[in-house]
Amino acid sequence: MNVTLQGRTRHYRTVTFDRARNAVLLVEQRLLPHEFKIVATKNFRETADAIRDMIVRGAGAIGATAAYGLAQGALAFRGRDLKKFSAHVETVYQTLKAARPTAVDPANAMNAVRAGMRAGKTVGEQQSLALAAAEEFANENVRHCEEIGRHGAKLIRNGMKILTHCNAGWLAFVDIGTATAPMYAAQAQGKKFHVFCSETRPRSQGATLTAWELAQQKISHQIIADNAAGHLMQRGEIDLVIVGSDRTLGRTGEVANKIGTYTKAVLAKRHGIPFYVAIPLSTIDWNLKSGFDIPIEERHKSEVLGAWGTLENSKLKTQNSKLSYVRVANPTSGARNPGFDVTPPDLITGIITPAGVFKPKELWRRRRELGFGG
Amino acid sequence: MNVTLQGRTRHYRTVTFDRARNAVLLVEQRLLPHEFKIVATKNFRETADAIRDMIVRGAGAIGATAAYGLAQGALAFRGRDLKKFSAHVETVYQTLKAARPTAVDPANAMNAVRAGMRAGKTVGEQQSLALAAAEEFANENVRHCEEIGRHGAKLIRNGMKILTHCNAGWLAFVDIGTATAPMYAAQAQGKKFHVFCSETRPRSQGATLTAWELAQQKISHQIIADNAAGHLMQRGEIDLVIVGSDRTLGRTGEVANKIGTYTKAVLAKRHGIPFYVAIPLSTIDWNLKSGFDIPIEERHKSEVLGAWGTLENSKLKTQNSKLSYVRVANPTSGARNPGFDVTPPDLITGIITPAGVFKPKELWRRRRELGFGG
Repeated sequence: MNVTLQGRTRHYRTVTFDRARNAVLLVEQRLLPHEFKIVATKNFRETADAIRDMIVRGAGAIGATAAYGLAQGALAFRGRDLKKFSAHVETVYQTLKAARPTAVDPANAMNAVRAGMRAGKTVGEQQSLALAAAEEFANENVRHCEEIGRHGAKLIRNGMKILTHCNAGWLAFVDIGTATAPMYAAQAQGKKFHVFCSETRPRSQGATLTAWELAQQKISHQIIADNAAGHLMQRGEIDLVIVGSDRTLGRTGEVANKIGTYTKAVLAKRHGIPFYVAIPLSTIDWNLKSGFDIPIEERHKSEVLGAWGTLENSKLKTQNSKLSYVRVANPTSGARNPGFDVTPPDLITGIITPAGVFKPKELWRRRRELGFGG
Repeated sequence: MNVTLQGRTRHYRTVTFDRARNAVLLVEQRLLPHEFKIVATKNFRETADAIRDMIVRGAGAIGATAAYGLAQGALAFRGRDLKKFSAHVETVYQTLKAARPTAVDPANAMNAVRAGMRAGKTVGEQQSLALAAAEEFANENVRHCEEIGRHGAKLIRNGMKILTHCNAGWLAFVDIGTATAPMYAAQAQGKKFHVFCSETRPRSQGATLTAWELAQQKISHQIIADNAAGHLMQRGEIDLVIVGSDRTLGRTGEVANKIGTYTKAVLAKRHGIPFYVAIPLSTIDWNLKSGFDIPIEERHKSEVLGAWGTLENSKLKTQNSKLSYVRVANPTSGARNPGFDVTPPDLITGIITPAGVFKPKELWRRRRELGFGG
């Protein structure tokens, strides 16, 4: 999406490939919203580091990064021996996979690239096909987000006030994003609306990433404390909620997403406000039979006990800004820090997918068109 | 309540009076939880400054501070001329009242002191009566909190997990507090329980003040992000919610309290978890006919856009620690920041008062015993 630097607006993807330098180009997300910087990884090991160190994060984005990283590794191979080439590609694959061992997207993405390579009869052909497959994987990710935007934009009417939570924006994918896709599409259709980004403590992705995206895209928005959503709903100031999902159960319609999503869904239900979840098909888990089986990661207590930001008295506002951690909480207290929660289908108005908008309970019946077994 | 400094545990009140120095002694709340310090105001103007600058905050605490401040001002008068003395006391009254012009507690407290002074026939007698009345006002505040504790402790059973929000602890009153009173009383009865303090963004009073109080009192507790309460309730990890109130409508049973309280009440209702509000009688507003008539203060956006804390790399951990502000959010985004919300009576299991526990709709019928018109 658009980024304006020193008055010049340019379109960026979160992940792209520079063929001339055989480099993967990534938005350095750890610096946002304080600094916008593109980093180029020189080889597949640096690309794996970038995934592990969370220079790039978000399911779709790390999938595409791994796909490009596999092609990058394949292209760096010198020689004609197909066996040695295959062994090298396997090393690249395992290195990239190990960067985020519990994530499924990098492996799925790299499997698509390997499948694409198979038609090649020489090392050179396989190298070309690897890059073509990686590009296709990234482009498909963008097309799916565009489709989510096309379906979701119909839900947005002029003058609406929309609540979103955490970041399911273009930074988490290759472009456009999921929860943000209907907003960007509605904006392109000339609709006017306002977005409340709930801060999303403890890691504040709403206040940092989503707010930054919307500001760059010139969409009217404000940040609110997570505590304020209920009050705004009660006063009639929120018309629609759209969030993303880390995992959606195809069998039950339950949605796992960033901690606090469930709370917003309960509040929306009480006020009769439509609550939508925007997801790519890769997010659907067709195996699990209950939301209680979804492992809820308990993260480090330091996230709850303090905050990261730029020191207000620092003169380095956007360039080379250094993030500082402040301890907010009582120093002798501990914390609980579950990273995700699970929203049941009775609270969800609809699930916006690239294939259309479905009731959560409809997913299983429509599983063939939603990519089940595919 | 108890505070342990360098291994020595001592009992403190938030506000006391030092007759020898004619000084009001206050816990410097702006430094908590990072530093515990008692400040002594040398004259009534310094006491007014302490109220205005929020060295002392919380309805009960600023009421008692103003009561002591009026006595302090009266005691500083030199001479026997009752007329000049009365004019001086009026100056003291207006100075203290102007320190927090929208608060009702300082004026109510000082009116009680002035009523107590009337029986005095000389300046000396009125001075003595002023201090006696201020002491009585503070002691009554403590007795009321003790009564809240006595009634509320019955709700706490062994092994319970209790959620509280913001700070309605002893720091906000003269001692014991309101939402914390049942916990302190239950602890004295030997009951074991665990408290989740929800952080209470944007000003984090749960993570700072309440957590500090509970840590000092050696009550088992953990801080959670405001986003985590729903998840914990869903997983059966919260048995009881107790919060305070800034204003409770006697006619409707609606409760205004720190932003986020309403959200906790909606969540508790969904999960069938009892939701109690602990209040002193002075918090009941017998006039307003609708919660929508309660003015909701919109506070400065900087609270939402960043956080105050101690720099982690600072060596000054508890002594003389300096608080730093970090900007967390996107620098080009704004914020909405409502300070309070209103919880309707259908979400409230009971209101714990010094006179007993009532259903919110019962308040009006029982208004005589709850101090209506008194």
